[in-house]
Amino acid sequence: MPTHILSGMRVIEAAAFVAAPLGGMTLAQLGADVIRLDTVGGGLDFRRWPVTEDNTSLFWCGLNKSKRSVVFNLSTPEGRELAMALITAPGPEAGMLLTNFPPRGWLSYEALCEKRADQIQLTLQGDRQGGSAVDYTVNTRVGFPMLTGPQDSDEVVNYVLPAWDLVTGKMAALGLLAAERHRSRTGQGQHVKLALEDMALATMGHLGYIAESQRGQRRGRHGNYLFGAFGRDFKTADGQRLMVVGLTGKQWQSLCDALEMGDAMQAIERQQHLNLRREGDRFRAREAIASVIDAWMAARSFAEATQVLDRHGVCWGKYQSVEEMIETTLPGNPMFSTVDQPGVGAYLSPSLPLDFSAIPRQPAQPAPVLGQHTEQVAMELLGLSGAQYGRLHDQGIVAGPETAQQNR
Amino acid sequence: MPTHILSGMRVIEAAAFVAAPLGGMTLAQLGADVIRLDTVGGGLDFRRWPVTEDNTSLFWCGLNKSKRSVVFNLSTPEGRELAMALITAPGPEAGMLLTNFPPRGWLSYEALCEKRADQIQLTLQGDRQGGSAVDYTVNTRVGFPMLTGPQDSDEVVNYVLPAWDLVTGKMAALGLLAAERHRSRTGQGQHVKLALEDMALATMGHLGYIAESQRGQRRGRHGNYLFGAFGRDFKTADGQRLMVVGLTGKQWQSLCDALEMGDAMQAIERQQHLNLRREGDRFRAREAIASVIDAWMAARSFAEATQVLDRHGVCWGKYQSVEEMIETTLPGNPMFSTVDQPGVGAYLSPSLPLDFSAIPRQPAQPAPVLGQHTEQVAMELLGLSGAQYGRLHDQGIVAGPETAQQNR
Repeated sequence: MPTHILSGMRVIEAAAFVAAPLGGMTLAQLGADVIRLDTVGGGLDFRRWPVTEDNTSLFWCGLNKSKRSVVFNLSTPEGRELAMALITAPGPEAGMLLTNFPPRGWLSYEALCEKRADQIQLTLQGDRQGGSAVDYTVNTRVGFPMLTGPQDSDEVVNYVLPAWDLVTGKMAALGLLAAERHRSRTGQGQHVKLALEDMALATMGHLGYIAESQRGQRRGRHGNYLFGAFGRDFKTADGQRLMVVGLTGKQWQSLCDALEMGDAMQAIERQQHLNLRREGDRFRAREAIASVIDAWMAARSFAEATQVLDRHGVCWGKYQSVEEMIETTLPGNPMFSTVDQPGVGAYLSPSLPLDFSAIPRQPAQPAPVLGQHTEQVAMELLGLSGAQYGRLHDQGIVAGPETAQQNR
Repeated sequence: MPTHILSGMRVIEAAAFVAAPLGGMTLAQLGADVIRLDTVGGGLDFRRWPVTEDNTSLFWCGLNKSKRSVVFNLSTPEGRELAMALITAPGPEAGMLLTNFPPRGWLSYEALCEKRADQIQLTLQGDRQGGSAVDYTVNTRVGFPMLTGPQDSDEVVNYVLPAWDLVTGKMAALGLLAAERHRSRTGQGQHVKLALEDMALATMGHLGYIAESQRGQRRGRHGNYLFGAFGRDFKTADGQRLMVVGLTGKQWQSLCDALEMGDAMQAIERQQHLNLRREGDRFRAREAIASVIDAWMAARSFAEATQVLDRHGVCWGKYQSVEEMIETTLPGNPMFSTVDQPGVGAYLSPSLPLDFSAIPRQPAQPAPVLGQHTEQVAMELLGLSGAQYGRLHDQGIVAGPETAQQNR
């Protein structure tokens, strides 16, 4: 029986930043052998913030958990030859490359196919023409910064969470799994492309924004109101904030019961000729509804208010800082365990959110040290002898953990 | 040769809202036969906004593209029996359920396994205990509303994009593919669980927020600045806005070249004792850098400015509305085609962002009409005769497109 859900699969990752490394890490946490390949000095994301006092990237550690790290000097022909040999190494569940580098030279699909005919490659791009785009420039193009933030403002509001990167990273992992399934049935490898911008544009279609706009319905800026039903932020007497949602009929009924606001809602229905059991009418009457809830919240402490909400099963969430999240939401969650990350120290680290009943849940593993597995992988997968490895190392073509960070 | 990348796979979806239907639609666009199962009257998301004048949900149409729609009366024992038979129907690549309903009664994994021993089920939950949570309440708990929006404000800012739903939906599709791969190798089915809140909490670890906070580094509110390198919004002389990014060394150099701001940057370096080739130092000096760029942008029209930026390969994005995106960004993109959605009309609809070289890209397909495939599926997969179907239909246990929307 396999010990992990993807036991046996091997993916070489030549990538940087969020989307591609996240896709690789997701496969690694699913149990694939994911080998991150970097050049001497580390990738473009090797110092990405947040960093520690000595400039070790917590971001890099977070996105490279459970992988192996191999460092070749990719500015030399010999280093690139080794990289191609690693990417195309034999094995029915190997021969898979995940990259967000331009598919040219040693990373061209055609060149790799000469070494392994059934190679699979997934290339992440900024836009579909391969142009430069990052999460922050993609999000500006799809309209959200103009729809986010205070209703009375005309400022644009950037998202802090790189949402498009996250979605694209998961989609990349999905694309690799689908391509591997196809290969296992047909023997055929392929080059799969995925553009960050396309992921965002497609989502705008999926969520109905494009159809809405093409029909001449223009979405406004609604501040913290949930669109199309009822939801908003509220402040309790002691200054705590919470988001309260009445999206489904059941959620709305719970909220009305909890706040004993049935009469007030009937008054709004009569006055505005609406039926608040309809979600759209709750959106139309959102300001009137919110003012009733405002008054209720302002008269109660957070503890009092949320006790009532919980008793009635209301759907709500507390606005809290990352610090409060760590203190109050993480404890007891079996997905988290304390991991000792080399060069950083101990902190809470997440394993896979997917919980497979057939396989015991694995605790989180640290990220490797840059170059930690160069020798191991070179001997295991490229068949190098110790002497051969030593020679390449002395020539600066491969680098282990003690030399991988040079030039930085 | 298969015509789609997931040809042969069949998934039954019993779900509502964003995450689970998006996961199902992703598999459907990959070519799996995804059958959305609803009760008479449609699911909880059947009227989710945006809607047309006659209350047809553009949201529902967007998230159910390429699926088949089957409607059984799930409030009757016979309807639930039919549902269980459909979920557990034979076939080596069938027997897969995607749901965000509580795994109880006819949706309990144990009950389904009695009918099909190797059943796969993926259950999406709000939080890991099965409690109520939606994207908007999860996002409050992980800290982003306090880190988003104007620096000088202490208001919370909700995200409009349901980012956690999107990531969770893709992760659900990934979980199903991984479980199916495991079953194809071991014969073993399983119940996979995934909580929306866990997806968000794990991501906070992946991106380094948890490690950063546990080390005592407190992330501030940085407005529209990109964290840890250089990036911000700027306004041109004619009032257009654009996001400009200098994340990598190459992007930064392009920006310095384009704006001919090398001397100004050297002055900042001398004054603040920084080295702007280091990304962290660009973040430290962000306000000084931005004021140089502010002046440059304010002296140029959008057309003038972006011509220069493009000539130097600067990474930038225009802040545009959904309307502008449709007008300027969608044309020519082969992912989009005009689809005639029954009950709505024609609009631009996206196919799969993944482009597989082994399979021709398929144009987008419309969502089904509710109940459109009830009869077809009942005869094809449940082996009902026309007479048997007719009897069940007359008894109100199954519903085709003409009766599926009753009670609404």
